[in-house]
Amino acid sequence: MLLDKRISFAYIFNKVKSELLIVLIVGLLTNLITLYSHAHLPEMPLTIPTFLGTAISILLSFKMNQSYDRWWEARKVWGAIVNDSRSFVIQLQTFLDTDDTAIIRKLAYRQIAWCYCLGQSLRGLNPIEGIEGLIPANDLIEIQKHTNKPLALLQLHAQDIKALRLTDTIDVFRQVQLDNTLVRFCDSMGKAERINSTIFPSTYRHFLYFIIYLFVVTLSISLRNVQMIFEIPLLLVISAAFFLIEKSAYHLQDPFRNRPSDVSVTAIARTIDINLRQLVGDQDVPEPVKPNEFYLL
Amino acid sequence: MLLDKRISFAYIFNKVKSELLIVLIVGLLTNLITLYSHAHLPEMPLTIPTFLGTAISILLSFKMNQSYDRWWEARKVWGAIVNDSRSFVIQLQTFLDTDDTAIIRKLAYRQIAWCYCLGQSLRGLNPIEGIEGLIPANDLIEIQKHTNKPLALLQLHAQDIKALRLTDTIDVFRQVQLDNTLVRFCDSMGKAERINSTIFPSTYRHFLYFIIYLFVVTLSISLRNVQMIFEIPLLLVISAAFFLIEKSAYHLQDPFRNRPSDVSVTAIARTIDINLRQLVGDQDVPEPVKPNEFYLL
Amino acid sequence: MLLDKRISFAYIFNKVKSELLIVLIVGLLTNLITLYSHAHLPEMPLTIPTFLGTAISILLSFKMNQSYDRWWEARKVWGAIVNDSRSFVIQLQTFLDTDDTAIIRKLAYRQIAWCYCLGQSLRGLNPIEGIEGLIPANDLIEIQKHTNKPLALLQLHAQDIKALRLTDTIDVFRQVQLDNTLVRFCDSMGKAERINSTIFPSTYRHFLYFIIYLFVVTLSISLRNVQMIFEIPLLLVISAAFFLIEKSAYHLQDPFRNRPSDVSVTAIARTIDINLRQLVGDQDVPEPVKPNEFYLL
Amino acid sequence: MLLDKRISFAYIFNKVKSELLIVLIVGLLTNLITLYSHAHLPEMPLTIPTFLGTAISILLSFKMNQSYDRWWEARKVWGAIVNDSRSFVIQLQTFLDTDDTAIIRKLAYRQIAWCYCLGQSLRGLNPIEGIEGLIPANDLIEIQKHTNKPLALLQLHAQDIKALRLTDTIDVFRQVQLDNTLVRFCDSMGKAERINSTIFPSTYRHFLYFIIYLFVVTLSISLRNVQMIFEIPLLLVISAAFFLIEKSAYHLQDPFRNRPSDVSVTAIARTIDINLRQLVGDQDVPEPVKPNEFYLL
Amino acid sequence: MLLDKRISFAYIFNKVKSELLIVLIVGLLTNLITLYSHAHLPEMPLTIPTFLGTAISILLSFKMNQSYDRWWEARKVWGAIVNDSRSFVIQLQTFLDTDDTAIIRKLAYRQIAWCYCLGQSLRGLNPIEGIEGLIPANDLIEIQKHTNKPLALLQLHAQDIKALRLTDTIDVFRQVQLDNTLVRFCDSMGKAERINSTIFPSTYRHFLYFIIYLFVVTLSISLRNVQMIFEIPLLLVISAAFFLIEKSAYHLQDPFRNRPSDVSVTAIARTIDINLRQLVGDQDVPEPVKPNEFYLL
Repeated sequence: MLLDKRISFAYIFNKVKSELLIVLIVGLLTNLITLYSHAHLPEMPLTIPTFLGTAISILLSFKMNQSYDRWWEARKVWGAIVNDSRSFVIQLQTFLDTDDTAIIRKLAYRQIAWCYCLGQSLRGLNPIEGIEGLIPANDLIEIQKHTNKPLALLQLHAQDIKALRLTDTIDVFRQVQLDNTLVRFCDSMGKAERINSTIFPSTYRHFLYFIIYLFVVTLSISLRNVQMIFEIPLLLVISAAFFLIEKSAYHLQDPFRNRPSDVSVTAIARTIDINLRQLVGDQDVPEPVKPNEFYLL
Repeated sequence: MLLDKRISFAYIFNKVKSELLIVLIVGLLTNLITLYSHAHLPEMPLTIPTFLGTAISILLSFKMNQSYDRWWEARKVWGAIVNDSRSFVIQLQTFLDTDDTAIIRKLAYRQIAWCYCLGQSLRGLNPIEGIEGLIPANDLIEIQKHTNKPLALLQLHAQDIKALRLTDTIDVFRQVQLDNTLVRFCDSMGKAERINSTIFPSTYRHFLYFIIYLFVVTLSISLRNVQMIFEIPLLLVISAAFFLIEKSAYHLQDPFRNRPSDVSVTAIARTIDINLRQLVGDQDVPEPVKPNEFYLL
Repeated sequence: MLLDKRISFAYIFNKVKSELLIVLIVGLLTNLITLYSHAHLPEMPLTIPTFLGTAISILLSFKMNQSYDRWWEARKVWGAIVNDSRSFVIQLQTFLDTDDTAIIRKLAYRQIAWCYCLGQSLRGLNPIEGIEGLIPANDLIEIQKHTNKPLALLQLHAQDIKALRLTDTIDVFRQVQLDNTLVRFCDSMGKAERINSTIFPSTYRHFLYFIIYLFVVTLSISLRNVQMIFEIPLLLVISAAFFLIEKSAYHLQDPFRNRPSDVSVTAIARTIDINLRQLVGDQDVPEPVKPNEFYLL
Repeated sequence: MLLDKRISFAYIFNKVKSELLIVLIVGLLTNLITLYSHAHLPEMPLTIPTFLGTAISILLSFKMNQSYDRWWEARKVWGAIVNDSRSFVIQLQTFLDTDDTAIIRKLAYRQIAWCYCLGQSLRGLNPIEGIEGLIPANDLIEIQKHTNKPLALLQLHAQDIKALRLTDTIDVFRQVQLDNTLVRFCDSMGKAERINSTIFPSTYRHFLYFIIYLFVVTLSISLRNVQMIFEIPLLLVISAAFFLIEKSAYHLQDPFRNRPSDVSVTAIARTIDINLRQLVGDQDVPEPVKPNEFYLL
Repeated sequence: MLLDKRISFAYIFNKVKSELLIVLIVGLLTNLITLYSHAHLPEMPLTIPTFLGTAISILLSFKMNQSYDRWWEARKVWGAIVNDSRSFVIQLQTFLDTDDTAIIRKLAYRQIAWCYCLGQSLRGLNPIEGIEGLIPANDLIEIQKHTNKPLALLQLHAQDIKALRLTDTIDVFRQVQLDNTLVRFCDSMGKAERINSTIFPSTYRHFLYFIIYLFVVTLSISLRNVQMIFEIPLLLVISAAFFLIEKSAYHLQDPFRNRPSDVSVTAIARTIDINLRQLVGDQDVPEPVKPNEFYLL
């Protein structure tokens, strides 16, 4: 997640440098052609590129909307994971008549592990890195058999809850209520995976770039009578604005790519970590994740 | 689902070749008429076509939005199918007190079959192709009696669950919880069918085309004083941009047509296949579906 | 529901013929005034009508969005009716321990009747036409006492389910689960009634027409120097585009008016009819509703 | 709710008369200044006001969207009240094993009272006017102690249901199902109160007016060379269009203000009244609310 | 929440004074350069800034939409808290067979405390200020151990409900129904925290400012032939309109910052306070929160 701080210029410039290079070349070429063969270039009324510019704004606006919605939905999914993780531990504490808090702690820690594991899995990192201390050794062996590690952890949750019922620590009714919480975990996990694996219609992006370059070419022909020293910067700043917004949208679309614009899943998992440990009465809790220079992962 | 790769130019060009041919003819005709009978063509101020162009962008933006929403809703429906399929197997495993895993495996495999069957049915393919190995022979006979094969499979699920209760393997309470999951399957199936069978208001498309051609005609009249060698390509690229976006929208609208822009239901069903087999402890799972050149089905 | 076929030109033209007549008169009048009293008409810069045209596109876009949403919501409601009808029969089959399938068939057929009855009631047709064969004679007498026939049918459903519990064919728990399904029927019915009885803010439409006519008047004054033979058709086609989109929106707004653009509730009810009959094991099922020339009701 | 009839011109004109007066004064002033001191007024290219006009359309479109959404959400809330009221009575009838219909009728009539009471309370009218005949005298005394009368009625509902359980007329399970319905009533009530008490960000409106007046001033300067007899009406009609749309939005925002554009809560409550009386078997039901000249309250 | 009153000009002006200062400097600089070195400034056709102005409106419209949605979602979350708080107390009253109202009052007052505590916590104020009188001393000690105070209060709720079940005051079934309400509290709390801690993509804002300044620079160059006394105010008012709308959006984005544009959580918590006290039969209830000059917190 990008913070509301001064974002490094290098970070922003890097996003669009290759596009701006193309714009620069287009601008210079048009000027060269104008110099040497004025007669061959057509009259290009300025209304053509400005109408294209308006069209680009409208199409960009659609893209920003949809990309933002994906990013916000991803954030909502992780918000639901926070809420359900908290509810899950409180449910365990109030549904189990036993005074044996070991089983509650076991499930709470596995839930913490699940959050870290899911976050890393979505980002394409090693899903089980750092969760060894949070789950029993058996669990680690068990989840190795599965392609989908977080799903395997949920299955282990369900098995423990089944064991609680078989020993009559909880009745069927409360088991079903706990199952509802597991179903919500399964839903949240699947929703995050869906956002992660579904590619935003890629042709749209190509067509948008196509129109932006069309805008640049027509604008540079329209403005050929303006001095090159004014025209080229104008071309660059206007097209930079378009490309930057498109890139912002492009990055928001895929919020689990280990990039500064990601949903901050590590920080959220750490919040859950702190909350759940305090709910089960632990005193030593980890620190919240510190933000980097201008973002939080 | 189109991948974020270089999409073949032929694929894109094929989408709009007939429209561009019409634009070409319009452009040539206008130029011809201008040549031979200049006096008869009206003055067409350039503001007319550019305002039409802005209007087209706005109307296209509406269409992209709604089409994208249909496509995204279809993807969400299949995401829900993934989530509920996983939850269903975990529920079966934790709700049945029996150690008899045969019945769980039977239901899990039928669930896999249901996913493939639904995907094929939506795409208008043979719904039962390839599912023979996943369900008992009786099931195959039974579903032949139904027009709607996936619905018949759900009914078989429900009958098996009823049998489990009649033998007291589960109680009423857990039966109802499993029934909730079946209701969600029924909902997802119906939602996908709804998207598939509801035609996006087709008049809108006709009116949009009407305005785009109006734009082309007025623009070509406006630009008649520009040399033909510049005017025709300009007409073609601008109208191509509009037609391509419209076509993208048109394809997104109907995400179950066995086209590259489809929701990748086969790949999703395969993911479910792998997950469910691993949940019931099978070792040999199929490979994920490999993407084609630039898309995944 | 309009099909993706060639829609008859007469159908489309009929929608806007009176509006186009007004536009024609405005165009002719302006030309007449120009001829006889040029000096009295003001200079009208073309930017005025074109900016109005852009404004109209934006306002139309809002209207299309909201109208489409109403139509799509109506379609979703009927999709939910499909899903819940199927779930209802499957629930009855798995919740009743009895082998007596007569009661299940009775409820399934009444459910079919409810779908037809609701569709006809929404369209302002005779709600009980054609449902006599599907429900017992008592039911027919009973629902005559109610203004709202579909609601009366739901009450009869509930009474039958109560009777099943009083004879201990089902227990309280399953009764409540069936009640959940009835509540969803009641919700779907009410949602469709809401869309049907709520008038889209009508002033908006008047203001939109007002601006479109303002556009026509200013445009025709702006273009008075263009030859009448070119100006009048241009006026007509541009304003026709606006009026047609507005009319499309207007028709989508009210999707239960027995019009070609309706949600195809009869066809949907027929699908339910076929599905439910096959679920209860009937062999002879009716045919799907055949589409008319260019629409399906 | 405004009907789809001819709405009185006086009603519409009254909404914007003060704004139009200001526009008239601005137009006359500009013309006066032009007459007497032409040199002092700047050149105002027409693109300035027309671009402002486009900006206004876009900002108005946002406002219409959000206002319409509030109004539609309010309508949905009342739709949910309709649905849940019907379900509530059907639930009571099927959940109570007793043949004592008095208690059902008592609850049904109190439910009717709750609908009227909530509607009047939202509109700032006397919340208990007209409901004396529908609830017992004790109830009237009890709700006097509460600031929030509809909430007090819901509490009485809950107490009656508790009494039914204490006498074993219903069991815990059905009590909980009825409680779910009460929770939905509580939600609908709170949602309507939220819409009613939350003020749409008021600065937005001020800024919008600011831009509209800026548009009027710049347009009147731009058009100063047009004859006053044409310019002033043009200024008035264009700005009237903007103001009227803004006013429509403004009225839709607050749908419980006892205005013609309100959600028709009295008529909806009457529909519930008729439905519930027929569900409990009453013969004499009240008439539906008659619409006024051009609206229904 | 800003009220629908005359908002102090100082409040509004303060929001944008630094931006307007920059605009003023840009305007003056351009005029100076024009005076002394006319030849070096390029021709800037007015279509460039006006097309940028249209683009800004479109991008602002997207931002207003998303910001408003965040604010409205925040308001909905607090609406849900109102509804669930009321339902919670009614549930306690009807689910407990005991006549001991002390426990109900204890939970109701803790619920009031939770609302105040959550509101203050979201705004970064001392979360436990003013709630000492509402909860027992033990509770205060207990929540000190937690970073997240409102979550600790929910845990205490759950423990009390567990105690009620252990003493058989309620059965498992009603415990689960109360747990559903606690889950909803947990969800609402987490949703508000999500909105509070998620930063709206900050690059978007930078790019928007970038385009607005680009607009100002190009517009001031375009208008350099207009007298400075007219040009500078025009620059200021148009850019002020853009900046003000951007600032409105920016403030709506973060609705829990102890600012006049906040969601009025203190006032909402007070409403809950009054409602719950009256539900448990208390006579002396606090006064509603009085609005400040032009806002309500």
